[in-house]
Amino acid sequence: MGKLWDKGYETDKVIERYTVGEDYVLDRSLLPFDCLASIAHVRMLAHVGIISDEEGRALEEALRELLSLVRAGKFEIRPEDEDGHTAIENWLVARLGEIGKKVHTGRSRNDQVLVALRLYMKDRIHLLAEALAGLIGLLLRRAEETADVPMPGRTHMQIAMPSSCGLWFAAFAEELVDVLSLLLSVHEVVDQNPLGAAASYGVPLPLDRAYTTRLLGFSRVQNNVLYANNSRGKCEAMVVDACEQVMLTLSKLAQDVILFSLPEFGYMKLPPELCTGSSIMPQKQNPDSLELLRAKAASVGAWGVQIKGIIRSLPSGYNRDFQETKGPFMRAVETTIDSVVMCTRVVEGLVLFPERMRAGFSKEIFATDEVYRLVQEGKSFRDAYREVASRLDSLPEGDPDAALRARTYPGTPGNLNLGPAKERLESLAAKAEEARRRFREALAQLETPR
Amino acid sequence: MGKLWDKGYETDKVIERYTVGEDYVLDRSLLPFDCLASIAHVRMLAHVGIISDEEGRALEEALRELLSLVRAGKFEIRPEDEDGHTAIENWLVARLGEIGKKVHTGRSRNDQVLVALRLYMKDRIHLLAEALAGLIGLLLRRAEETADVPMPGRTHMQIAMPSSCGLWFAAFAEELVDVLSLLLSVHEVVDQNPLGAAASYGVPLPLDRAYTTRLLGFSRVQNNVLYANNSRGKCEAMVVDACEQVMLTLSKLAQDVILFSLPEFGYMKLPPELCTGSSIMPQKQNPDSLELLRAKAASVGAWGVQIKGIIRSLPSGYNRDFQETKGPFMRAVETTIDSVVMCTRVVEGLVLFPERMRAGFSKEIFATDEVYRLVQEGKSFRDAYREVASRLDSLPEGDPDAALRARTYPGTPGNLNLGPAKERLESLAAKAEEARRRFREALAQLETPR
Amino acid sequence: MGKLWDKGYETDKVIERYTVGEDYVLDRSLLPFDCLASIAHVRMLAHVGIISDEEGRALEEALRELLSLVRAGKFEIRPEDEDGHTAIENWLVARLGEIGKKVHTGRSRNDQVLVALRLYMKDRIHLLAEALAGLIGLLLRRAEETADVPMPGRTHMQIAMPSSCGLWFAAFAEELVDVLSLLLSVHEVVDQNPLGAAASYGVPLPLDRAYTTRLLGFSRVQNNVLYANNSRGKCEAMVVDACEQVMLTLSKLAQDVILFSLPEFGYMKLPPELCTGSSIMPQKQNPDSLELLRAKAASVGAWGVQIKGIIRSLPSGYNRDFQETKGPFMRAVETTIDSVVMCTRVVEGLVLFPERMRAGFSKEIFATDEVYRLVQEGKSFRDAYREVASRLDSLPEGDPDAALRARTYPGTPGNLNLGPAKERLESLAAKAEEARRRFREALAQLETPR
Amino acid sequence: MGKLWDKGYETDKVIERYTVGEDYVLDRSLLPFDCLASIAHVRMLAHVGIISDEEGRALEEALRELLSLVRAGKFEIRPEDEDGHTAIENWLVARLGEIGKKVHTGRSRNDQVLVALRLYMKDRIHLLAEALAGLIGLLLRRAEETADVPMPGRTHMQIAMPSSCGLWFAAFAEELVDVLSLLLSVHEVVDQNPLGAAASYGVPLPLDRAYTTRLLGFSRVQNNVLYANNSRGKCEAMVVDACEQVMLTLSKLAQDVILFSLPEFGYMKLPPELCTGSSIMPQKQNPDSLELLRAKAASVGAWGVQIKGIIRSLPSGYNRDFQETKGPFMRAVETTIDSVVMCTRVVEGLVLFPERMRAGFSKEIFATDEVYRLVQEGKSFRDAYREVASRLDSLPEGDPDAALRARTYPGTPGNLNLGPAKERLESLAAKAEEARRRFREALAQLETPR
Repeated sequence: MGKLWDKGYETDKVIERYTVGEDYVLDRSLLPFDCLASIAHVRMLAHVGIISDEEGRALEEALRELLSLVRAGKFEIRPEDEDGHTAIENWLVARLGEIGKKVHTGRSRNDQVLVALRLYMKDRIHLLAEALAGLIGLLLRRAEETADVPMPGRTHMQIAMPSSCGLWFAAFAEELVDVLSLLLSVHEVVDQNPLGAAASYGVPLPLDRAYTTRLLGFSRVQNNVLYANNSRGKCEAMVVDACEQVMLTLSKLAQDVILFSLPEFGYMKLPPELCTGSSIMPQKQNPDSLELLRAKAASVGAWGVQIKGIIRSLPSGYNRDFQETKGPFMRAVETTIDSVVMCTRVVEGLVLFPERMRAGFSKEIFATDEVYRLVQEGKSFRDAYREVASRLDSLPEGDPDAALRARTYPGTPGNLNLGPAKERLESLAAKAEEARRRFREALAQLETPR
Repeated sequence: MGKLWDKGYETDKVIERYTVGEDYVLDRSLLPFDCLASIAHVRMLAHVGIISDEEGRALEEALRELLSLVRAGKFEIRPEDEDGHTAIENWLVARLGEIGKKVHTGRSRNDQVLVALRLYMKDRIHLLAEALAGLIGLLLRRAEETADVPMPGRTHMQIAMPSSCGLWFAAFAEELVDVLSLLLSVHEVVDQNPLGAAASYGVPLPLDRAYTTRLLGFSRVQNNVLYANNSRGKCEAMVVDACEQVMLTLSKLAQDVILFSLPEFGYMKLPPELCTGSSIMPQKQNPDSLELLRAKAASVGAWGVQIKGIIRSLPSGYNRDFQETKGPFMRAVETTIDSVVMCTRVVEGLVLFPERMRAGFSKEIFATDEVYRLVQEGKSFRDAYREVASRLDSLPEGDPDAALRARTYPGTPGNLNLGPAKERLESLAAKAEEARRRFREALAQLETPR
Repeated sequence: MGKLWDKGYETDKVIERYTVGEDYVLDRSLLPFDCLASIAHVRMLAHVGIISDEEGRALEEALRELLSLVRAGKFEIRPEDEDGHTAIENWLVARLGEIGKKVHTGRSRNDQVLVALRLYMKDRIHLLAEALAGLIGLLLRRAEETADVPMPGRTHMQIAMPSSCGLWFAAFAEELVDVLSLLLSVHEVVDQNPLGAAASYGVPLPLDRAYTTRLLGFSRVQNNVLYANNSRGKCEAMVVDACEQVMLTLSKLAQDVILFSLPEFGYMKLPPELCTGSSIMPQKQNPDSLELLRAKAASVGAWGVQIKGIIRSLPSGYNRDFQETKGPFMRAVETTIDSVVMCTRVVEGLVLFPERMRAGFSKEIFATDEVYRLVQEGKSFRDAYREVASRLDSLPEGDPDAALRARTYPGTPGNLNLGPAKERLESLAAKAEEARRRFREALAQLETPR
Repeated sequence: MGKLWDKGYETDKVIERYTVGEDYVLDRSLLPFDCLASIAHVRMLAHVGIISDEEGRALEEALRELLSLVRAGKFEIRPEDEDGHTAIENWLVARLGEIGKKVHTGRSRNDQVLVALRLYMKDRIHLLAEALAGLIGLLLRRAEETADVPMPGRTHMQIAMPSSCGLWFAAFAEELVDVLSLLLSVHEVVDQNPLGAAASYGVPLPLDRAYTTRLLGFSRVQNNVLYANNSRGKCEAMVVDACEQVMLTLSKLAQDVILFSLPEFGYMKLPPELCTGSSIMPQKQNPDSLELLRAKAASVGAWGVQIKGIIRSLPSGYNRDFQETKGPFMRAVETTIDSVVMCTRVVEGLVLFPERMRAGFSKEIFATDEVYRLVQEGKSFRDAYREVASRLDSLPEGDPDAALRARTYPGTPGNLNLGPAKERLESLAAKAEEARRRFREALAQLETPR
């Protein structure tokens, strides 16, 4: 019977598990980038004459072979390899003998993992930017379609003023345009090459970091070798903070949709494939995907807290603490990308019920319009406000469509003015696409046998 | 070449991955507890006559068989099962036909996962308490051994006053006694049975929750069925907050040891098996295990933030958001247990260099003693302080041993007074052991064929 | 015109502001406790003969006079005093001359602030416990009053199963009983006297810490002098974590009430004095107090993050970082007490609309009851579930009252079983009251001239 | 005696304190910006003919008068005013009668506080950018001065490889250049005008938002009126996340200096005016300012957590929760600016001891150089590594200066390559200065009587 709790805390296993951590799993996603960066590294070593051209070619070729194995899922990091970086060297030594022992010349595992993570980071930012651009475009389309659909505007969750369904969709679109812009600024900051920083202090060899920078498609060298190492975790935190900005927007959208699709509102409905049932109540169709999105917004935030908590007040130079930032970083970006994809599906499939929205226009919602009617008759705003407040019971019936038409200046329910957002979206998407193209082309060339 | 970034965001897979999440992996640790709780559930159903005695026996027997499969690693949750709870029912239906369809009578997946998590929670608290008690005992032993070893006392990281190595070890021991006491209080709060709460509102059947409470070894029923569901995440947060208290103490110990084992101090040294090397610097022996401990302290804190962020301001009743608290909760408790085990190994293996500690006693460290010598000669404290401050350069040489002897009242470097901590430790450890024994006995009886 | 942005960053002021921080303001709440602890300290110094009996009496008398000034708002901490601790000594020296210079004998500002904070901490826990007990009692009363009022039970925010308003009130009551129990356990951990720990390593004088412990009404001495200093921030974090548990419960209650008082639900209404209006919409009555409560729940959580982030991985002994934990700690406890008081007012004034709740019972809410009707006819649960799922459109009308009556076992909507919660509340409230009584009596004696 | 704990929880006061919160204090910093935005608002109202030109001029003039009172500290927000926004209107009504009642025409307190906060935000970003630019310039200067000063390079806090003091200074400089770049990107995102968004849904009046945008010196209108309100807290979070990036860098610098100025290292020393003494140990000179900086880094992080925790999953439109983000936001930016100023003072005053740094070059620090000597002799890296590892005891003496000279490629201790960082700093500082100039000019024009 003892088995249940006999977790078997053998000390040596704990130490091994403790130091290796999740690296085994996480390094799988990093391995292809590690291989590519290693190709760039050995090509540079040959370029500056630290190894011979033949050695360089042999190493490159073997690394490309390894890359194929990795992609085919045929390369395994064995426990005795400690981590993916060591596994690559071990494999090369087994494959090439003496030559394999030269791959680590002029680098350290510190800058090796830094550069692999940086490439992964860029790749995921590109994916996220693309997904975001798609979602924003969709939100703008739905905003256009529903520009004239009256929907009660709410503050404090309560019915407040006349608004439109289009304004609601467009609000998320414009918010995400700003977030996308922030994300691309973060991309600019992190788009620098740490390779060549070695353990934190460089090496006494004539490395050519500008060369690997070009090969790997980075915009610039991360110059100071100590800064390159100190920046681990910091770059991750910048990206995760931008991811959290995405999630903050999506969590609001999720909360709204959960609320507005309650039978008591009935403004909208999720398509059934985005809902799940109950094991005990046969009638239930629950918006699980949106509840999970709401929860995952908190998770992405916590992963940012984790990364920043780990690196705060660390002394300069590499510290093993950095290893622990990998997990929350990778989880955060993957979760954010998934969430944008999920949310896109939600926005796509959302079924709207304009009549239920219109039915939400109680008389009180027009109170502010009545105030402004009095203002236009010459009353001061404060007096008009007080007068209407004193006779709320005798407010006249209002007309939702007319109320929308009365909001005339740009950005209001009667005049969404989507043009500027569309233009910014286009320009940001083009910028992202260009960054992605350059990145892919560079890596593709590394994959091509010389 | 495209493969690298073709992450393949097929919408349907995203939705599946999104809703299933890590449940697949996490439920593996919960399955044994799920089986045991299911045995208790069907035994109760038969006890109150909702199913027949034969049906009850058949279900119990099958569940025990399933438990063996689970433990032997021979039961797999298939993707089409959605989660472990459904997998159990599906297996029972495949095994027993019609009777298997009755296992879910009177329960929901909501209370099914609640009870499995609660059992897992108790089990891990017991393990953690045991590990903590072991570490505290060790710290007290080392404190006793080193009670007379002078060591500079530091404030602001700087040399401050005469102290002893024993005081340093004992400080951690006493801190952890308080943490252990808190942990056991949390155990008392969470030691209540949620089974029977169903989806949040009970069921129209005459369930006997006191009966399953006895069978599963809980101290009491979690009475209000809505509260039982609302408490998900809250109980987890209480446990993780206690875990964080453990980690806060261990992170301080780690920081001290990292510092004191620098060559500039040389007070102590980690045994080599707790250090790891560098891939580029052949001379390095780095205290990786302690740096990871320091980092994991931040991680456990962030996981608490995650859980509390997820459940904050959720409306009453089950919400799918709860699913996301499972991961951080399980990670936090496993990490904390591992950290205590690791730290025990560190404290055990720590090599001390008393002469280096003694060498740290510069003249200035005795300044306060000089002040108090003047006080005992009749000077007021403030005047004595000022006088010594004005002639720091001419301080007499001090004697570390004599300085320790001059600290006479309990709890000071000269009089550690370890008795009370030992007594509290004994009494807390006994309490933890008793809770664990009752828990195990109850579960062992469920495993025994009737 | 420059004034607006000329913030005037004069370096010296920045340094002063930086090191003094908010201490000026925060110490005002601590000063009375500081005076009382100082009385205990000097009485002990006289008791063991470090100062003469006359000196002791003179210092005590002066400190009581100072206490009166403090309470009357007539004592000001001047900038040149740096902090409240120094201000007390300076005042005593001005008042008593030579004798005043003896007050600091055998202590440091480190243990001086520790003990003042610890007394404040105990005082606020007592207040919070009392406020919580009051709220729980009220929730139980309202649960009793509404035990038979049918209210739709919700999961995923959607209508799920028959429930009662009483179950809803009682769920919060039982949750808070558990939180109160946790809070009192935390009280037991922190109820120890740090005075006499001095700067972290004790002093070479024969202090009698057991004596001050009795005088100040602590349960025990915080024995190890280094631990006493290391525990700063840790004790604060334990209390704030318990406060956060309070806030997590209140935030759920707030979210429910905000939702249920929307016109679309209309189950309940806040009294007007708990709402505020809009500056632009005359018709608005917004539940601001509950929205603030929801937000403050996040704030209390963040203050816990702040405290734990500050102390994590600090080396042993006093570090100035500790100063920064005072603000978040004091804010968190005051906010939590205020929130409980506010929430009590909400629960008291909440106007219920049973007819609107009853109107929420759509046919689908009875689907589970229909399943269990079939189960009682002999169908297996899973088959009954599937049958009902297939004919949701033809569900019979249900009777909310009958559905409640069908939930018979304890803790369900038909049988709230409030007895155990009432008993636990009584016993916890008595324990809290007793702790408070002992604390007050001890301090009252210190205030009484000998 | 009762006074001590009689905190006097009168319900009504709690409700008032609860809803008003710290607004009273915080609004004082916002009032000048509120006045300026109000001037822009009324000028616009007159411009489009909603009020007459005379009314507009009267309101402007009165608002300028109020602005003077505010700056002179002669305007007080009375409790009965509820907040600063209302106080302004009340003062105008008292001053101008009927005309004063028109100031709130076409706006809500929601967009009124939004615009005041946005102006404050821009002002503080400008201040922070300026302070950062100053600190970076200083770090670069010190790096240049110390480019040739050998200093042990550390990883895992332990001695690792030859490095220079210049590399250490420059690492912080380059890190902060990236942070400054991020900060200015955030500035671009938040530099949009929310005024005219009203309560969240605009108003039925022909407002001209482009006009107020020009008057207030914003780069663009925040178009969608719902988004403008939804962005509250989100913009604050972006700024605070950037502030946290500043603090993460400064906390590392603080930790390094605390460590390196310990007597055991003696590499550097803080000037005495940045240290404080002990109340009990006359010899102490503690680096309090740096410990506080370290702690405040955690605080700024927690304030970000607070803001994001408050706004996460809020439904669309204004919610009162937003009020609670003001405090942590303002605290975070002020603390960050102060920290940069403080840190500048530290870097300025830091006294270096090159001989002590040089003394830290133990033989082992040259192990990697020995490896690379063998590599240049033709050995493979891995074999050279193993050989050196096997004879660590017989390493030859190394020469720190020669070791620096052997690091030749850009960014290494032997070749700091500060040029690019200097150029980026110049360009970013110019950009920040230009933004600040435009902002100030716009506001200065609003202050000028027409």
